Amino acid sequence: MEEPAAPTETELLQRITQLANDGSQDELETLVESLPASDLAFAVAHLDEAEIQAVLGTLPAEAAAGLLSQLSDAQAAGVIAQLTPAEAATILQEMGTDEQADLIQELDEARGDAILEQLPAQEASEVRELAAYDDDVAGGLMSREFIALPVNATVRDVLVEIERALESMGDGDARYGYVVDDQQRLVGVLPMQNLLFVRRSTVVRDVMIPEPMTVRDDASLDELSDVFESRAFLGIPVVDEAGVLRGVVQRDTVHDAEYEAAESDYMKSQGIVSEELRTMPVWTRARRRLSWLSVNILLNLGAASVIAVFQDTLQAVIALAVFLPIISDMSGCSGNQAVAVSMRELSLGLVRPGEIARVWLQEISVGLINGAVLGVLVALAAIVYDGNPLLGMVVGVALFLNTVVAVSIGGTVPLVVKRLGFDPAIASGPLLTTITDMCGFFFVLGIASTMLERLAS
Amino acid sequence: MEEPAAPTETELLQRITQLANDGSQDELETLVESLPASDLAFAVAHLDEAEIQAVLGTLPAEAAAGLLSQLSDAQAAGVIAQLTPAEAATILQEMGTDEQADLIQELDEARGDAILEQLPAQEASEVRELAAYDDDVAGGLMSREFIALPVNATVRDVLVEIERALESMGDGDARYGYVVDDQQRLVGVLPMQNLLFVRRSTVVRDVMIPEPMTVRDDASLDELSDVFESRAFLGIPVVDEAGVLRGVVQRDTVHDAEYEAAESDYMKSQGIVSEELRTMPVWTRARRRLSWLSVNILLNLGAASVIAVFQDTLQAVIALAVFLPIISDMSGCSGNQAVAVSMRELSLGLVRPGEIARVWLQEISVGLINGAVLGVLVALAAIVYDGNPLLGMVVGVALFLNTVVAVSIGGTVPLVVKRLGFDPAIASGPLLTTITDMCGFFFVLGIASTMLERLAS
Repeated sequence: MEEPAAPTETELLQRITQLANDGSQDELETLVESLPASDLAFAVAHLDEAEIQAVLGTLPAEAAAGLLSQLSDAQAAGVIAQLTPAEAATILQEMGTDEQADLIQELDEARGDAILEQLPAQEASEVRELAAYDDDVAGGLMSREFIALPVNATVRDVLVEIERALESMGDGDARYGYVVDDQQRLVGVLPMQNLLFVRRSTVVRDVMIPEPMTVRDDASLDELSDVFESRAFLGIPVVDEAGVLRGVVQRDTVHDAEYEAAESDYMKSQGIVSEELRTMPVWTRARRRLSWLSVNILLNLGAASVIAVFQDTLQAVIALAVFLPIISDMSGCSGNQAVAVSMRELSLGLVRPGEIARVWLQEISVGLINGAVLGVLVALAAIVYDGNPLLGMVVGVALFLNTVVAVSIGGTVPLVVKRLGFDPAIASGPLLTTITDMCGFFFVLGIASTMLERLAS
Repeated sequence: MEEPAAPTETELLQRITQLANDGSQDELETLVESLPASDLAFAVAHLDEAEIQAVLGTLPAEAAAGLLSQLSDAQAAGVIAQLTPAEAATILQEMGTDEQADLIQELDEARGDAILEQLPAQEASEVRELAAYDDDVAGGLMSREFIALPVNATVRDVLVEIERALESMGDGDARYGYVVDDQQRLVGVLPMQNLLFVRRSTVVRDVMIPEPMTVRDDASLDELSDVFESRAFLGIPVVDEAGVLRGVVQRDTVHDAEYEAAESDYMKSQGIVSEELRTMPVWTRARRRLSWLSVNILLNLGAASVIAVFQDTLQAVIALAVFLPIISDMSGCSGNQAVAVSMRELSLGLVRPGEIARVWLQEISVGLINGAVLGVLVALAAIVYDGNPLLGMVVGVALFLNTVVAVSIGGTVPLVVKRLGFDPAIASGPLLTTITDMCGFFFVLGIASTMLERLAS
């Protein structure tokens, strides 16, 4: 069934493993640095453990860190998990604290701790601090690599400080200095170009921009999006309750987090609750998927118990059994469309979780139209199949009613779930299908049971 | 059921409409410019037609354009559709050509043409040119606002040209000039800071960076992502087959497009194929959703016809009817998990569409584990419900087998659909559920029919 991968990709994999096996450090480094992120991710997903260890063992630590930063957190953590804590720590030291924290969060606790013990104490404690934040608030997205300048320092001091900081900060943004008082509270921002034309004896306070815009460390991703959407900032300083400077959030980091949130909503709606790669151990993958599936099967059994109640009706009019899964599936489809529209309007800020009645009114008109169309279609199918117009009427009316129920629930359930403080992307689908299944089975079999004599004749 | 919206939001809406009705241009402009994008989008979604017209009528054209640029394309197009072509054109003239093209693409053709006729001929033809590109290739994402410099011009000429260009280009990036030969082919890039310390008589050729990195106008979003992922560029020039400079793609535009693609995959997987807002006309919304639902109901009827074939078996063992929707739903869930993982691995570049056998092998092991667990659960439920171990065995084995089928189909169908050149986000779900429904009904009823005598006793 499989056709050979395009020659360039096979060649790429061969070339990487060959260079790693030959220990050709320089050539391998040049190749890895020239590859686009998607090719690197592809290669890592296709090399086996020994090959990846050979590649990382051959590359200098900085290049290995560069390679890992091009991968998703879960993929990078999968690679790190194959190294000894000491090897992992050597590579981690070449990363920014925010990347380190993201990786440590992905690893199991014992392994994460083992790696942190190999890092310098100061660095390890900064990583622990960042890893303690949720990864969708400013504190979890900020970088600790920034240039902090004392407000009373002179430009001469600053130039020395910058030179020192540039050595240690790696990828951080050196275009701005963040000016703090002796309590480490942020009091200003200093665009570095302001230093070009002032005397060395000038005090920072006199060249900085005072009272800069900041975000709190618990600011949500939505708030950060709004800030970067409306201003051309490349980064924004993060402060805690006391106004102490904790870090800087970069524009690109926020963009990446928005992308991941959108993608993760899709994954969660389908029951993939945490990032899964097929290169992960099969037991891990099976267990994660099962935790969602087993809740679903219980909900499904509950909904199907409605059928059991009407077993006699079904026995009398067996043709109804053909239409039960259709009613269930189609109502799920209509309802999930409404869920998707609500999820999107929530994420765009077009509705707030309190506006349940408003959304319901806007949704029900679509439900009436589409319910009527689908009801007629399924009624016609039933008449063709069974030759009984009454059967057609029963399933048609049931699907009409249940489509109205499905869009009503589908449109509002994400708002309700969000108001209750749960994640609407995970919970909306299962809640929706359980309720619409129960109602759908009840409509079909309940209506049928009221006219059983005429139907069964 | 609805609780009042938070006071600040109601107040915000009241304040906007009041300022618009009073015609308080300056105050309204200040308010609109101070609002974060999400509040503007919220307000536009909550004001009625007359109120929006009043707001846009009060704002100067530039501020109105700024407001629209904070909205999604569909929301902005909804607002534009409420204006006369002349009013719309006045506002559009304050936008970049790429934003204009995005809006025109959202409008129906007649209205779009009417607005373009009101624009200067040169501008209208540029918008038409951009609107002709797909919106997920470099040509559709690029901006036409850039500074083009003749390679033989002197720095003196350039400074005049820049001053002229800055007036007309609005939001464009003026940090780079793009150097072209007399055929308009791109031959270099000129960072504007290079102009600071050279003589006015120097020729552009001598200060530009020759042979800059470019992308082709048909480059995909993935290629653009790779470029911006691996380089710190803020923008990259777009050239056609002949090397002629067509535009510049900005980093932020690519980030936004990636976000929209991820979100749109989620929407499409749930049957919302083009952007829908609840403020759109109800008939439009109903029609768009129906086009997907009506394909689904046909597929559903096809799958359910398997039940019809086994109607006698079902009549004899009516308890099976309770489990048919459970088998259908649970297989759909397991299969959709596999679809989601494949969609993500495709978008991360971890698998290529040709690797069907490899993905299938990685997926089937999860299917065997989860199929066994779910099969046992449903078998126990059947035994509790009916007291018949044989019934438990039938539905348990059927769900086990069908889970294996579902993950096999789910994991591979996005790759197959993509190889065939269709959109896996739209087509994978319906194909998956149709096949798994058919197989699931066949397994339950087929196995049951082979042991009908013992089951029915």
